[in-house]
Amino acid sequence: MLKIGLIGATGHVGYVLEGLREQTDAYLAGIAPGSHGEDMDSLNRRALQYGYIPELYPNYIEMLDTLKPDVVAIASHFNDHASIAVEALHRNIHVFVEKPVATTLADLDNVKVAYQNSHAQLAAMFGIRYTSCFLTVEKLLQEGSVGEVRLLHAQKSYRLGERNALYKRRETYGGTIPWVGSHAIDWLYSWSGERFTSVFASHSTRANQQHGELEATAMCQFTCTNEVMGSLTIDYLRPKQAPSHADDRIRIVGTRGIVEVMHNKVYVINEGAEGIQEAPLLPSQPIFADFLRQVQGRGKCLISSEQSFAVTEACLRARMSADEGRVVFF
Amino acid sequence: MLKIGLIGATGHVGYVLEGLREQTDAYLAGIAPGSHGEDMDSLNRRALQYGYIPELYPNYIEMLDTLKPDVVAIASHFNDHASIAVEALHRNIHVFVEKPVATTLADLDNVKVAYQNSHAQLAAMFGIRYTSCFLTVEKLLQEGSVGEVRLLHAQKSYRLGERNALYKRRETYGGTIPWVGSHAIDWLYSWSGERFTSVFASHSTRANQQHGELEATAMCQFTCTNEVMGSLTIDYLRPKQAPSHADDRIRIVGTRGIVEVMHNKVYVINEGAEGIQEAPLLPSQPIFADFLRQVQGRGKCLISSEQSFAVTEACLRARMSADEGRVVFF
Repeated sequence: MLKIGLIGATGHVGYVLEGLREQTDAYLAGIAPGSHGEDMDSLNRRALQYGYIPELYPNYIEMLDTLKPDVVAIASHFNDHASIAVEALHRNIHVFVEKPVATTLADLDNVKVAYQNSHAQLAAMFGIRYTSCFLTVEKLLQEGSVGEVRLLHAQKSYRLGERNALYKRRETYGGTIPWVGSHAIDWLYSWSGERFTSVFASHSTRANQQHGELEATAMCQFTCTNEVMGSLTIDYLRPKQAPSHADDRIRIVGTRGIVEVMHNKVYVINEGAEGIQEAPLLPSQPIFADFLRQVQGRGKCLISSEQSFAVTEACLRARMSADEGRVVFF
Repeated sequence: MLKIGLIGATGHVGYVLEGLREQTDAYLAGIAPGSHGEDMDSLNRRALQYGYIPELYPNYIEMLDTLKPDVVAIASHFNDHASIAVEALHRNIHVFVEKPVATTLADLDNVKVAYQNSHAQLAAMFGIRYTSCFLTVEKLLQEGSVGEVRLLHAQKSYRLGERNALYKRRETYGGTIPWVGSHAIDWLYSWSGERFTSVFASHSTRANQQHGELEATAMCQFTCTNEVMGSLTIDYLRPKQAPSHADDRIRIVGTRGIVEVMHNKVYVINEGAEGIQEAPLLPSQPIFADFLRQVQGRGKCLISSEQSFAVTEACLRARMSADEGRVVFF
């Protein structure tokens, strides 16, 4: 029976609560704040609604040392992910961590070293990969629906709404490319089948409606090995009249076809049929359950540690490119 | 009565033949080859089908000097546009020229100097701007449908098919960014409302199916004044099963809304209504007729000379960026 500790009440804690729903061999044993001022009462109430009765610890170090969880999930303020992950890895506790894994390259290095020196496993919360459309794309690519991938373009568009102070300072937020863009950079990285060789990016805080240092728009262009290329636009300018919070898209162009996610559908053009085909969708899966299966030796998580680190690094190099207005090489 | 001379049988000669269809004050007086080996017989037959009976000249210099046309349209091999335009401008003949105006920056400079020293007018064949969807976007932007533009992303996707030798050598073709991308770079330039400050681009000849130096994929990312940004993907990998030759798109994100062209429709999200609205489309217009109206002092062509030059320059700087793997500044 795996003991799960949840650290933080800020990021996608829902992945953990959902992922444990049908697990008979894992349970939420404890929760602890990961950052100063997190609302643990509210998290505790949510846990109770799911039927979990975790112990509440005053800080995560005490939880790690007293509870000795097998696995921790980390969803604190974004700039605290790395140091918490390091503490868990030092204790050989498996880590399921909010993306990006770190908000600075120095912090990322600390996590990588701690991981290499541990016997623990790690995956970042790239949960969109487990939604219906994106799992379907994964399958289509494996089946060779587009042939050899040559070009990818992704879109992240969110409503801004009113966000709290965490989002308004680079130091705590990390930036829009790492926070919002990381999902799409994960798609580009995973589905190009290549390594990134360089990135050029731009971002701007204009039109951010009093959100301080938060960038309302951004773009990244990655060059990859084998002359594959991937780009990405990000904006927080999706109007409130839009039919949903997010407008996530990706278009993957290969030598034998094109696959595209748009408006929660998957479209294919290839030799399979004339015209544009709508692909039948796979059901979504709970990401945390997939990670737990790997921890238990019963499978391989779709999100590897290598990829979690590589995508975080790519986010931070893209942010550096945008800050400095120059090409950054990998 | 304006005398029109058509030079070349390679590019969008249809713009000229169509544009003259309902002109009662202009006629196709002569045609001449612009480049070695152009099929003038076939062009002549097309002209006759439209009911025009142009005189056929053995070369364009002779046509310029003998016929003394008021306006020439230039649609020769792509690397000959510039020198032909210079000859016409030296004679104060108005120039309607295939895009890009030139395939090298040195050639572009020659055209600009000749233009500045002439009394002639000039516009490049950015004909997609005159199609139904794109005229509709123009109108929506003028009406303030998106507020202040902050981010633009465009797509050009074409079927490759079998292209002739002209397309297979950089020297004659100019490159995929200038030839295919110029349309989208025109949209970004015109609709950003800004000047370009830098570009980073990539391109690759991989997967070009024996088309020599033709790039099958490309990407450009422009930074603009006022931190506006615009990007673009180009590919020749649209499968033959696709429902059309081209899949042209643009998405324009502003402070108060989003306008998008896709699948020959225009979509709007803004305060005008809940959800995604489909905009009623304006009818398409013949681009050449618009230029002739300007020549006759009866209006202002949607495509200015300034823009024709600026977009050509942007194409060539983007190509330079892709060739050299570095940011190019304007």
